[in-house]
Amino acid sequence: MQGMMMHRPLAIIDILKFAAESYPTGEIVSRRVEGDVHRYTYPEAYARAGQLAHALAALGVAEGDRVATLAWNGYRHFELYYAVSGMGAVCHTINPRLPAEQLAYIMHHAEDRLLFVDATFVPLVEAMAAELPAGLRVVVMTDRAHMPESALDLLCYEELLEGRPETYDWPELDENTAAGLCYTSGTTGNPKGALYSHRSTVLHAFSVAVALGEALREGRRVLPVVPLFHVNAWGLPYAAPLTGASLVFPGPALDGGSLFELMEAEGVYSAWGVPTVWQGLQGEIRARGRNPAGFGHVVVGGSAAPRAMIESFETSGVTVCHAWGMTEMSPVGTQGHLPAGHEDAPFERRMDVKQKQGRRLFGVELKIVDENGRPQPHDGTARGELHVRGNSIISGYYADPAATEAAMDAEGWFGTGDIATIDDKGFLTIQDRAKDLIKSGGEWISSIDLENVVTSHPDVAACAVIAVPHPKWDERPLLIVVPEEGKRPPKEALDALLLEHFARWQLPDAVEYLDALPLTATGKVSKLTLRDRFRDYALPDAG
Amino acid sequence: MQGMMMHRPLAIIDILKFAAESYPTGEIVSRRVEGDVHRYTYPEAYARAGQLAHALAALGVAEGDRVATLAWNGYRHFELYYAVSGMGAVCHTINPRLPAEQLAYIMHHAEDRLLFVDATFVPLVEAMAAELPAGLRVVVMTDRAHMPESALDLLCYEELLEGRPETYDWPELDENTAAGLCYTSGTTGNPKGALYSHRSTVLHAFSVAVALGEALREGRRVLPVVPLFHVNAWGLPYAAPLTGASLVFPGPALDGGSLFELMEAEGVYSAWGVPTVWQGLQGEIRARGRNPAGFGHVVVGGSAAPRAMIESFETSGVTVCHAWGMTEMSPVGTQGHLPAGHEDAPFERRMDVKQKQGRRLFGVELKIVDENGRPQPHDGTARGELHVRGNSIISGYYADPAATEAAMDAEGWFGTGDIATIDDKGFLTIQDRAKDLIKSGGEWISSIDLENVVTSHPDVAACAVIAVPHPKWDERPLLIVVPEEGKRPPKEALDALLLEHFARWQLPDAVEYLDALPLTATGKVSKLTLRDRFRDYALPDAG
Ligand SMILES: Nc1ncnc2c1ncn2[C@@H]1O[C@H](COP(=O)(O)OP(=O)(O)OP(=O)(O)O)[C@@H](O)[C@H]1O
Ligand SMILES: Nc1ncnc2c1ncn2[C@@H]1O[C@H](COP(=O)(O)OP(=O)(O)OP(=O)(O)O)[C@@H](O)[C@H]1O
Ligand SMILES: [Mg+2]
Ligand SMILES: [Mg+2]
Repeated sequence: MQGMMMHRPLAIIDILKFAAESYPTGEIVSRRVEGDVHRYTYPEAYARAGQLAHALAALGVAEGDRVATLAWNGYRHFELYYAVSGMGAVCHTINPRLPAEQLAYIMHHAEDRLLFVDATFVPLVEAMAAELPAGLRVVVMTDRAHMPESALDLLCYEELLEGRPETYDWPELDENTAAGLCYTSGTTGNPKGALYSHRSTVLHAFSVAVALGEALREGRRVLPVVPLFHVNAWGLPYAAPLTGASLVFPGPALDGGSLFELMEAEGVYSAWGVPTVWQGLQGEIRARGRNPAGFGHVVVGGSAAPRAMIESFETSGVTVCHAWGMTEMSPVGTQGHLPAGHEDAPFERRMDVKQKQGRRLFGVELKIVDENGRPQPHDGTARGELHVRGNSIISGYYADPAATEAAMDAEGWFGTGDIATIDDKGFLTIQDRAKDLIKSGGEWISSIDLENVVTSHPDVAACAVIAVPHPKWDERPLLIVVPEEGKRPPKEALDALLLEHFARWQLPDAVEYLDALPLTATGKVSKLTLRDRFRDYALPDAG
Repeated sequence: MQGMMMHRPLAIIDILKFAAESYPTGEIVSRRVEGDVHRYTYPEAYARAGQLAHALAALGVAEGDRVATLAWNGYRHFELYYAVSGMGAVCHTINPRLPAEQLAYIMHHAEDRLLFVDATFVPLVEAMAAELPAGLRVVVMTDRAHMPESALDLLCYEELLEGRPETYDWPELDENTAAGLCYTSGTTGNPKGALYSHRSTVLHAFSVAVALGEALREGRRVLPVVPLFHVNAWGLPYAAPLTGASLVFPGPALDGGSLFELMEAEGVYSAWGVPTVWQGLQGEIRARGRNPAGFGHVVVGGSAAPRAMIESFETSGVTVCHAWGMTEMSPVGTQGHLPAGHEDAPFERRMDVKQKQGRRLFGVELKIVDENGRPQPHDGTARGELHVRGNSIISGYYADPAATEAAMDAEGWFGTGDIATIDDKGFLTIQDRAKDLIKSGGEWISSIDLENVVTSHPDVAACAVIAVPHPKWDERPLLIVVPEEGKRPPKEALDALLLEHFARWQLPDAVEYLDALPLTATGKVSKLTLRDRFRDYALPDAG
């Protein structure tokens, strides 16, 4: 028997419409690449999204088309999130920190029709002009006065919007229509695309809004350091207007000093980002001897939050929420707020809890399985590879059946590659990573990709790249080389080779030479053994 | 282009499973009809729901079957909400305050297979034994020791559960599967059923959780006075476990003294109910000279919250949220929290805002239309009949095409029968009611139904029943009679006639005699004129 209720498709644009109607004084404040601070309200953002949709339509953007962005956190990027998805096209956010090779791969794979860039990234686009998909139009997200000189045929964002009507007749879309596309470079091989839908995005926004209600409510001001160009800024562009919270976008200025100033000037209550960013902010806080006024809540995720960082925030009166998630999960999976009844527990005990990755959001199911796929108990001891299921989790990678096949288990759950325990209070603890990766400053470096290149050097017999803990970047790559008999290729030579394929920050910090690599029972290199052996390795600039 | 995200059907049982896993210390506290206070946690509730589902299956309940309840707010009623819907059947909550005639109509119309009743209501069921649907089994929601003596063949709730497994293999249902059924007696004629689905219920819970985040979060304790037997207790049985808030159920003891004691003993932060109930509580608060300890938030809805009530709560430090909704809307439509930036406004100005019915929830669209269906501006001045649209709003009445036809407009919106304005800040103000009803203590009395019976008296030429303001019950019915020449039927005679069809509390408080009824231009009785004329009418026991 079916219920007798209306069926209204869940639609992303309805969130901004709702905020414009119900929270007309809710603000979006943006530090711009132009240098100044821009501010407007949700109704203005909604009107500009309408203008932008008209401009996109005039440029020939049709339902299903991919519209790419290479941009910092700011109001124009926010407008693209809503206008592109609202008209039925797909907002494809690209991480500008990827090497040019991967950027080109991603744009070709996604078949992007338009590319919106901050003025900052025009040189990047110029440098890869020959690699861009044929017919791609490039729009610079600025006004005429700030348009950069360029040999490229660039369109100007503000000119495109000028004079357009502020209301747009948003089409009624099936709620499973694609809305956003984000490539993850998390694993070896080519980047893989997560193709979000309106349904997954709205349900994720609901789950985040409910789980993070402490930060997300009318009158609160929230600052996403986590980028709009990746992992949807953890859902904040949706969850904030859904709850009436105001957004403060930091633009490109992510150093501790700039963040401190913006947070204080704008009365930011809650700030969200990866541990590396908070190291910068905490340095500034130490230097000034105080927190930015009004700062009371921080969400730390993307990598394990170091205990010292958690303790330092909490001691100064800032509540830490340690969260875990993945691009493939829209991305938030768990939230680490203290459970009820723990408020009066001793400090150490509370920090023990905060160091864990927290409890699942409603809509996210967790299971940990052993090597044979058998579910393990949630007893805080049994480990297993973490698998997830839910409406905001990918069912596969965009146009990549092989990667899809590798990621999904027989019951249709997505394998995260994280090794975890779950305790009887529902708390997840990430213990290790099955995947061979290094996470540096919130960005992945694939050890296997590095290994593939290094192995191509004539003096290298075998090699392995592992993650070594680093005080600033969380992890940095260490390269372990087994040289050919009588050889010892210097770091400089290997770097030169790697620079043909990788950005400089992705290169290993140091090289160690061994006679042989430790192997597992099945004959594979044992990264676990190597990691154990080099756990306390002193990297050159790790202080 | 479709997204590539998992499709997991939204399911009510997942909310309780989530609470059991993530909020294992979250409590459900219930004052029982047995007299004592019962308490357990979400994991225990989930395990008992599993046992109950096994018991229901053993009784032959199949997917789509209707399982009725006649019960107060308590943990067993809560278990029925989840077990019945979780197994794919329909939880049909019945308002025990309806006259026996309507109770019987509803059970027959719904074709209920099972009826769960609190011991309190066994006499009611005995009295209407001959009218019950054939084959209906009756279960008393108590243990063996408290089973009442009865000529009926009664089953015992606790005996049904005993020894059953605590885990149940909940079927994976289409999210549009019917989950709940509630009849509204709001309009003339027979009661009409709203048939909720899993999707509508989960989305409504999300919207309530986000909009009422002030009351709904882990560690908070919330008391629904609003009944589980009607309007889903405003969604609290779903929104509370979704957020980790604890529930305190008052059972049958809804007088001011009992509520005060329970709220204080249990540290209730937020209490939800109709104005009449708060009059009782405010009387108790005045008598004791203080609020229950920990009381900080009240949701008032179902009828307009009187300004004096709002002011009295707010002055004593209790935040008032004036909400509006309907059975047909799952039921919450708007929330009346103060918008950001108004905290420092003068008291009178803040009360002006609080007296309005508030802003829409995400997922609820509002439009006001004139008599020709033309949308009116949201300028705070233009009035119109309020129409609503959204996933938690009915698309029609259960097995009642005529009522459905009358309720839905050409674009598929539901007509509420409320006359309203909406201002440019999104605030709704209910100005009047198009429908001819009296709302007494949160319960509807249909003036037209009363009129039909009175008109049948030989000494009555014509009559009209209108609502007259009442300090305790908000509104009470006043009967206006145009007698036949030379007659004047006394109130006692009319009451005797009415008691054949109505409960005593539904009878008019007084009778007035006129020579003729005022008519509108189209020849219908002008209720508006009558209401104006008797606006200050002194009802017998109105003090
Ligand atoms: N709180 C956390 N603690 C430990 N590890 C975390 C935490 N949050 C995220 N991670 C790690 O990050 C992984 C997810 O990274 P995600 O895909 O979201 O973004 P990214 O890795 O920064 O981007 P990309 O996929 O493009 O490289 C998780 O699988 C986990 O290994
Ligand atoms: N805050 C409010 N202010 C004014 N009127 C309200 C408010 N809340 C609800 N109402 C009135 O109550 C109506 C909805 O009543 P609803 O159907 O939810 O329950 P009920 O009337 O108590 O039950 P039933 O329909 O069985 O009689 C609204 O259409 C409106 O007329
Ligand atoms: Mg990833
Ligand atoms: Mg009604």
